[in-house]
Amino acid sequence: MRTFDLATGSDQFVKDIRVVRWEQYELGKELPFQAMWYSVPPGSESPLDQHPELELSVVVAGTAHVLSGEKVHAVEQGSAFLLSSTETHIVQNRSTDATLTIFSAYWMPGQGDV
Amino acid sequence: MRTFDLATGSDQFVKDIRVVRWEQYELGKELPFQAMWYSVPPGSESPLDQHPELELSVVVAGTAHVLSGEKVHAVEQGSAFLLSSTETHIVQNRSTDATLTIFSAYWMPGQGDV
Repeated sequence: MRTFDLATGSDQFVKDIRVVRWEQYELGKELPFQAMWYSVPPGSESPLDQHPELELSVVVAGTAHVLSGEKVHAVEQGSAFLLSSTETHIVQNRSTDATLTIFSAYWMPGQGDV
Repeated sequence: MRTFDLATGSDQFVKDIRVVRWEQYELGKELPFQAMWYSVPPGSESPLDQHPELELSVVVAGTAHVLSGEKVHAVEQGSAFLLSSTETHIVQNRSTDATLTIFSAYWMPGQGDV
């Protein structure tokens, strides 16, 4: 069994967002997806993003407000959201005091088709 | 974009453990893994489990104490653990008041090898 610690993971910052990429764990092809955590400070948001990979995001702390297309979805701690390939998205943390942290798994379309 | 709500998901109970299986969302082969949430009440634990699938678990609330082999690993909210194929495991919630909730993704060995 292996454990992956959010607090001590090697990180990088994109704007004020802490990103902990799972490449550092060198899991190779053990996982059928790639993964990362990212933490959005209170009052901040992720840059507009769009990519070919599908992305499943699980909120592990705080509440996410996800802007996708013309809609906003509130996703609470524990709950999840799935972005389709090339779907644009911005993830906001509307809290004034709590960090929003998301675990995200992503993979290329068709990868589930095995 | 689709959202998956932990609180309102259709559930079943295994002993006192609430299990919300993602089959209900009928994602078919969109995801390269199967998924579920499970919630362990304070002072309780999951039954001893062992299965061929690899399993990545993300703690979305509380702290997990995972018994695997002869070791115990404490895994805090936000952090994760990966069980290999056929690795035995019991997940304990040692808190006296907080529910432990885990998001779990699982897949057959070799499924990442695409």
